[in-house]
Amino acid sequence: MNLNSDSMLLAPMIAGVVGLVVALLLYARVKSQPDGNETMNRIAGYVRAGSMAFLVREYKVLAIYSVVVGLALGLSLGWLAAGCFVLGAFLSLLAGFFGMKAATYANVRTTQAARTGSKSKALLVALDGGAVMGFSVAGLGLIGLGVLYFVYNSSDSLGIVLHSFAVGASSIALFARIGGGIYTKAADVGADIAGKVIEGIPEDDPRNPGVIADNVGDNVGDVAGMGADIYESMVAAIVSAMAIALTIPWDKMKELVLTGDEHSQRIAAVMLPLALSALGLVISVVVIFAARAFSNARPAVVLRNSLIVPPILLTVASYLLVPMFSISQNVTIALAAGAFGGALIGLITEYYTAAKPIRLVAEANLTGPATGIIRGLAVGMESTAIPMLIVVTAAYIADRALGLYGIAMAAVGMLAGTAVVMTVDAYGPIADNAGGISEMSGLGKEVRAITDELDSVGNTTAAIGKGFAIGSAILTVVALFSAFNMEVNHVRIAKGMAAMSLELTTSGVLIGILLGSILPFLVGSTTMMAVGRAAGQIVEEIRRQFKEIPGLLESKAEPEPEKIVDIATKAALYEMILPGMIAVLAPVLVGFILGPQALAGLLAGSLAVGATMSLFMANAGGAWDNAKKFIEKGGLPGHPKGSDAHKAAVVGDTVGDPFKDTSGPGIAILIKVMSVVSLLIAQLIATIGG
Amino acid sequence: MNLNSDSMLLAPMIAGVVGLVVALLLYARVKSQPDGNETMNRIAGYVRAGSMAFLVREYKVLAIYSVVVGLALGLSLGWLAAGCFVLGAFLSLLAGFFGMKAATYANVRTTQAARTGSKSKALLVALDGGAVMGFSVAGLGLIGLGVLYFVYNSSDSLGIVLHSFAVGASSIALFARIGGGIYTKAADVGADIAGKVIEGIPEDDPRNPGVIADNVGDNVGDVAGMGADIYESMVAAIVSAMAIALTIPWDKMKELVLTGDEHSQRIAAVMLPLALSALGLVISVVVIFAARAFSNARPAVVLRNSLIVPPILLTVASYLLVPMFSISQNVTIALAAGAFGGALIGLITEYYTAAKPIRLVAEANLTGPATGIIRGLAVGMESTAIPMLIVVTAAYIADRALGLYGIAMAAVGMLAGTAVVMTVDAYGPIADNAGGISEMSGLGKEVRAITDELDSVGNTTAAIGKGFAIGSAILTVVALFSAFNMEVNHVRIAKGMAAMSLELTTSGVLIGILLGSILPFLVGSTTMMAVGRAAGQIVEEIRRQFKEIPGLLESKAEPEPEKIVDIATKAALYEMILPGMIAVLAPVLVGFILGPQALAGLLAGSLAVGATMSLFMANAGGAWDNAKKFIEKGGLPGHPKGSDAHKAAVVGDTVGDPFKDTSGPGIAILIKVMSVVSLLIAQLIATIGG
Repeated sequence: MNLNSDSMLLAPMIAGVVGLVVALLLYARVKSQPDGNETMNRIAGYVRAGSMAFLVREYKVLAIYSVVVGLALGLSLGWLAAGCFVLGAFLSLLAGFFGMKAATYANVRTTQAARTGSKSKALLVALDGGAVMGFSVAGLGLIGLGVLYFVYNSSDSLGIVLHSFAVGASSIALFARIGGGIYTKAADVGADIAGKVIEGIPEDDPRNPGVIADNVGDNVGDVAGMGADIYESMVAAIVSAMAIALTIPWDKMKELVLTGDEHSQRIAAVMLPLALSALGLVISVVVIFAARAFSNARPAVVLRNSLIVPPILLTVASYLLVPMFSISQNVTIALAAGAFGGALIGLITEYYTAAKPIRLVAEANLTGPATGIIRGLAVGMESTAIPMLIVVTAAYIADRALGLYGIAMAAVGMLAGTAVVMTVDAYGPIADNAGGISEMSGLGKEVRAITDELDSVGNTTAAIGKGFAIGSAILTVVALFSAFNMEVNHVRIAKGMAAMSLELTTSGVLIGILLGSILPFLVGSTTMMAVGRAAGQIVEEIRRQFKEIPGLLESKAEPEPEKIVDIATKAALYEMILPGMIAVLAPVLVGFILGPQALAGLLAGSLAVGATMSLFMANAGGAWDNAKKFIEKGGLPGHPKGSDAHKAAVVGDTVGDPFKDTSGPGIAILIKVMSVVSLLIAQLIATIGG
Repeated sequence: MNLNSDSMLLAPMIAGVVGLVVALLLYARVKSQPDGNETMNRIAGYVRAGSMAFLVREYKVLAIYSVVVGLALGLSLGWLAAGCFVLGAFLSLLAGFFGMKAATYANVRTTQAARTGSKSKALLVALDGGAVMGFSVAGLGLIGLGVLYFVYNSSDSLGIVLHSFAVGASSIALFARIGGGIYTKAADVGADIAGKVIEGIPEDDPRNPGVIADNVGDNVGDVAGMGADIYESMVAAIVSAMAIALTIPWDKMKELVLTGDEHSQRIAAVMLPLALSALGLVISVVVIFAARAFSNARPAVVLRNSLIVPPILLTVASYLLVPMFSISQNVTIALAAGAFGGALIGLITEYYTAAKPIRLVAEANLTGPATGIIRGLAVGMESTAIPMLIVVTAAYIADRALGLYGIAMAAVGMLAGTAVVMTVDAYGPIADNAGGISEMSGLGKEVRAITDELDSVGNTTAAIGKGFAIGSAILTVVALFSAFNMEVNHVRIAKGMAAMSLELTTSGVLIGILLGSILPFLVGSTTMMAVGRAAGQIVEEIRRQFKEIPGLLESKAEPEPEKIVDIATKAALYEMILPGMIAVLAPVLVGFILGPQALAGLLAGSLAVGATMSLFMANAGGAWDNAKKFIEKGGLPGHPKGSDAHKAAVVGDTVGDPFKDTSGPGIAILIKVMSVVSLLIAQLIATIGG
């Protein structure tokens, strides 16, 4: 069979449409579930309205951004580039919109299912809600790339078309992730602190006007933000592999296809990442329906297996399929290295945020918050080592199998199960919301017990998903980095120039590396500060409401949650601008002022620092969070909830909030965006400097 | 004049001897000062005995290490290498010994001078005490390198002689810094926590058996540890410049000397770093005696100017002198870039740990410890940017002036004022100790007021010194990195092989970078954990003493401080092994297993992460520390010492202790040691792999 036959050219689009149809079916299914009593619906209505209001206002800001960048692209790289950029961005927004709608319908329906006493039914509703996001993300990504490849596969513009699409995806991911991250943690920290300042208000108390914003934040950050992030990773991994295939010197490509001339082999190499991602999406559909069939098993087992099974199926399928297209099994090796690497990173992340390290962090709180924080920082730092070793090993294996193209294929393999990972991730905030709604609606202990179990599983899977997202980001960035360098040299050689030297001892490269090492810290700093400032505004407004609304404390009057939602929305949208600009402008400025050598150094330096910093921050935050929960579950006998040790753990948890949900993911997206932007501008700056 | 004439060959040694004589004179002067009453001397005696006991036991451990490494060196690189390694290590130990002796005599004499009411006299004693360390460090370093150059200047072994000497210096610095850092913060944190656990015990209370260990720790960490660190930086900077001069391809060297053939120019280039460091030492003598003459001025002004004047004098002197030797003024440009860069980094560090950022951190404590810690982390992250930009700018200017050799000369310039920087640094713990002794001896408020002022100036200068130490470390590592690559290629070309490719897209280099990015986090994690564990042991022993010694709480019985000292000593010596081994073995393992390409990547990755992480940790720690002090001085009206905001700030300060004094400096030394070790093994691994 021929990878570039007309029927094969349609495969990615068909797979994408299948994914989208599955998403729509599940969406309809979720909406058809019973949605409980009036109180539940009123609260869920607030959360839905708040989430959608944020999305709409965020989209307005992003529209302005897209117009500006689209114009810049149109004028510099042509209007085709501008159009593809807009398409990449628009599909990301569309996926986010579907996913949020589904999540905010699924939360209250999960509560209602729990109210009928059926844990398996509640699990199913939450899982279906998450799957809408999962299949929207993977489906729309494949449709977009599939259509572009179908139309431009024999055009000289293919490279620029793909790069522009990826930049569109990246831009939305950047702002959705950082804006969403600021929103969710500002609301969380703000509501928590206010709850402590105004005495006698427990967590998720309906009198606290910040609680709705906190629940909105879960959707905004962990559904829309995470979705845009993973959509971007998938798109960037596929695009980097396709870009490498388009520009790699021929002698490094020869092992890919067993027969055929250079032209047909190169076409096969360009098509392959799309074809394998389509395969991954089909496998994801199978896995999610299998998971639904096992909804009577323990939720933890169901979700865990959903993450472990796809790499196995993908490897087997690739092993069986590639010979039919006369393609070397080296492709399967590279793909498997990435796919299993991703699953392993997830499991390691789970260890560092759930097992022995958590007990150590919890115990350190016995001597106060300072020792608890020190221990959590130490655990976070230690936790960077094994994931990085896994990435290095996967890259090494893939490189031995297929060279730099293999590293990109490993990233494709890691992200082939995107739909499943995203499903499990979006499940988390739905379960969390379901718990919040049951608490605020005053439903009984039995209901809360079910939602609590679903929620606690969601916390573990969220940690796995986060590790997986960062791991795939690192591998994708390595692939994008190679693609950038090939693009630069492709242009230089076409213009009769020597290939760019990226010798580490060149001062341009060294200076780039040192400059690049600063950027993750700047994004970390600006996002941490942003959360602090926004949380401060929320605390003030909550204080004002308790002071000025008579009877609020005695539950005789209603709070005004929409005002908090409004503050959080405005703050998040405003505060995301500075870190976002750093990510977009740094590569542009360095590229145009110092040239491609320094830009390559910049990418390498920010990769080294960004990869480890984001793992450190995500895992330290997860460790503090779970240490607190460990104490609350009675992990330290004699030190129950409310004890000094618990209070100390709460301090760690609060520090960890922006660590794990704002700055850590923000830094991971920084390094992706910088690489994608660099790839896009590669041909404009290729001839600057030596 | 000819740089390599016999008289010029003697110059570094003569300057070194001058430095050493000044150190001895000041030592005699310090010892001749009145030492106060019996109580003061008893306490000072404990501190001195504890400090010396630690030093002796540390030296025993280091002797074993030196024998092992010396044997390994002797067998692999010859016994000359082993001998030079031992000499480099021994001179570092000797400097530490002198400096500690002087500091532990100067502390009580500073208290006594304050007791007589003379602030200027107290300043002078503390300054003289610090200067003993300053001139010992710079003097012994120059004597060692000067003698080796004098003997081996025309030998083929010169390279290996210099590298081995540097590895000796590095090894001691590594263990002294990490061991000292663990000791000082374990004692500090342990004494603080115990003081809170056993109620009613204020800071520096004589009943607390941990207070002596805390004072010992100041000497062990900030005198001996810092001294070995700066000695190593100076040696490494000089050696890297000499090594580059020995191996750099001739066409990149041509602008250095205005006349003469390749041979004589190369010799001049090798000699120049030594000659200019000798000049720096002479200037330092002048500056310190000038500072003594102004001891009636405000202490803050005296110490600050001591740091700012040397770069100016050095630049002027170089500008006047180099034409006499027919050497290009490009040397002066490179030297000045480094010297002024160092001073600028010091001033920026002062801003981030003293000015507006501190107020922001202090205010964040109004909503609890979590927000205070978040703000401190954000300030620390932000503070990495400008120092890195300064280093990049200095490196850029130096590179434009003289190429890679210029970058090494910038590092030499930054460290030419070593004696002054070290003097001001060692002044800090002496003033701190003087305050502790006056408190424990029950001297009056007036005495404490003087020592407090001296101490608070010491805190600022310590921050400047720390920023300076890290800045010079980064520049030195860049220079060492270049020297390593040249050494490898020198060997390869001599053996008829192609020069090593360090293209960033080579998978070996990329893998090295990713592996290298982990190491600073591992050293950070192991050192933070070490402080936590050791502090825990100290808390337990203090609890035991209060429980088992009848009358201790009522001041009717004496505590047993020597037991705490013993615990801290053992813990520090044991806990320094793991992080130390990481630093020494990582480059050796990667070099011998993966080859020089991956090792170069490893160095680049750990440089990018290590440089920023050490700045981040040092400055975040400094910000928390000073925010606490800001509140104690009444910076937040209505929130005095003991208020909730102050308690929150204490949490930040405690987290910051291992951040700024153990892990941050430990990571900075990690990247230096790795580079020096790599340079040493370069010729052994040069031919491994591609």
